[in-house]
Amino acid sequence: DIVRELETCCATSQLLQGVRVLITAGPTREAIDPVRFLTNRSSGKMGYAVASAAVNMGAKVMLVSGHVALDCPTGVSRVITESAADMLNATHEAAKQADVFIATAAVADYTPINVADRKIKKNAATLNLEMQRTTDILATIKQTYPHLFTVGFAAETHDLMTYARSKLERKNLDMIAANSVADGKAFDQPTNALEVVWKDGHTSLPEMDKHALATALMQLVAAQYLQRKQPTHDHD
Amino acid sequence: DIVRELETCCATSQLLQGVRVLITAGPTREAIDPVRFLTNRSSGKMGYAVASAAVNMGAKVMLVSGHVALDCPTGVSRVITESAADMLNATHEAAKQADVFIATAAVADYTPINVADRKIKKNAATLNLEMQRTTDILATIKQTYPHLFTVGFAAETHDLMTYARSKLERKNLDMIAANSVADGKAFDQPTNALEVVWKDGHTSLPEMDKHALATALMQLVAAQYLQRKQPTHDHD
Repeated sequence: DIVRELETCCATSQLLQGVRVLITAGPTREAIDPVRFLTNRSSGKMGYAVASAAVNMGAKVMLVSGHVALDCPTGVSRVITESAADMLNATHEAAKQADVFIATAAVADYTPINVADRKIKKNAATLNLEMQRTTDILATIKQTYPHLFTVGFAAETHDLMTYARSKLERKNLDMIAANSVADGKAFDQPTNALEVVWKDGHTSLPEMDKHALATALMQLVAAQYLQRKQPTHDHD
Repeated sequence: DIVRELETCCATSQLLQGVRVLITAGPTREAIDPVRFLTNRSSGKMGYAVASAAVNMGAKVMLVSGHVALDCPTGVSRVITESAADMLNATHEAAKQADVFIATAAVADYTPINVADRKIKKNAATLNLEMQRTTDILATIKQTYPHLFTVGFAAETHDLMTYARSKLERKNLDMIAANSVADGKAFDQPTNALEVVWKDGHTSLPEMDKHALATALMQLVAAQYLQRKQPTHDHD
């Protein structure tokens, strides 16, 4: 049965043998001019740890990453992207070959409407930067590839669980991993904690090293992914 | 005479023995909310290379740096700063103990007027980010400590020399090192080229490794600094 199969697979750590896992990680950069850009405090550490954990479980891993100070994990195929639009394009392309999609990247929600092709001079005392919404990578990919087992991340300063459950439903995701970023928590730190939420369950993963946390998360992902792929038949 | 003294010093590479050199380097980060910030493409490589070159010439070097992916050079005393305001404070404090000030940092010219204490939600289709001018670190430090031999950097996409000469005069600097950042040139690259301008002269340093370039620049700085400190007396 599925339980015994899971136990056997877990024991050999090859639960995701042959499964193609696509992961986005790190921040995006939205150019204001040739020199300046908008970004965020994501170090990419959590996403890279998830990529390593997936490789260790036998998955074929593709990583679409923003600029980070991290080396590509062994066995992972990586592409570096700049803006939210670049990351969407690269993810779109890679998603064609994926079974599981884990969106850990901290993607810009807004991007400048006008990008100056010369460095903006500081003549004025004030500057108004007009921005518009970027395309939502997570929602777009799930809409385009509904078969993809899709895991979102949510970094919130407040109302963690409420926001996580709402995001799961709104974007039709299979799982959400939510973490608190209040007081700079999680960003560029070696440890993190996650609230993991799916349609009919949730688990709290307490604060631990990001690599241990990534392994625990990938075991939850694998369990839910395999359960969906091979549903139990009570009456068989 | 001064020429022989320079030659002797150059030969022993200890031209700046006992001289206290303060260097700013890297980008600043202007917070929009607890997660997002505005920054720029400076890697800090040029400033860190200048710090190493100054140490190698016998200087006592203090480095006020933004967040970069570089280790502190051997023999250098470093403080890491976040925003333009933080960098100004740290530089102000360090300048009290300095003889030479070299401002290589890429400091934000504008900073958001209102910093949100919660992560901004992406409810609206557009977002207007209102920003105001930051305090000019280079000009402020030179005004406060007029005795400081002060070297500015200028990264420009266009009209390099015109802008460099104008900045030298406007900010009452002793020297300007200008480089082109057109087409992403200079940023995060191992090589660079500089136009070095002072009151009564200028030199072009052609494209070379940033460490070689930093040494060539520091030799120009040392020559001008020592000449001013010990002016030649033609009639002696």
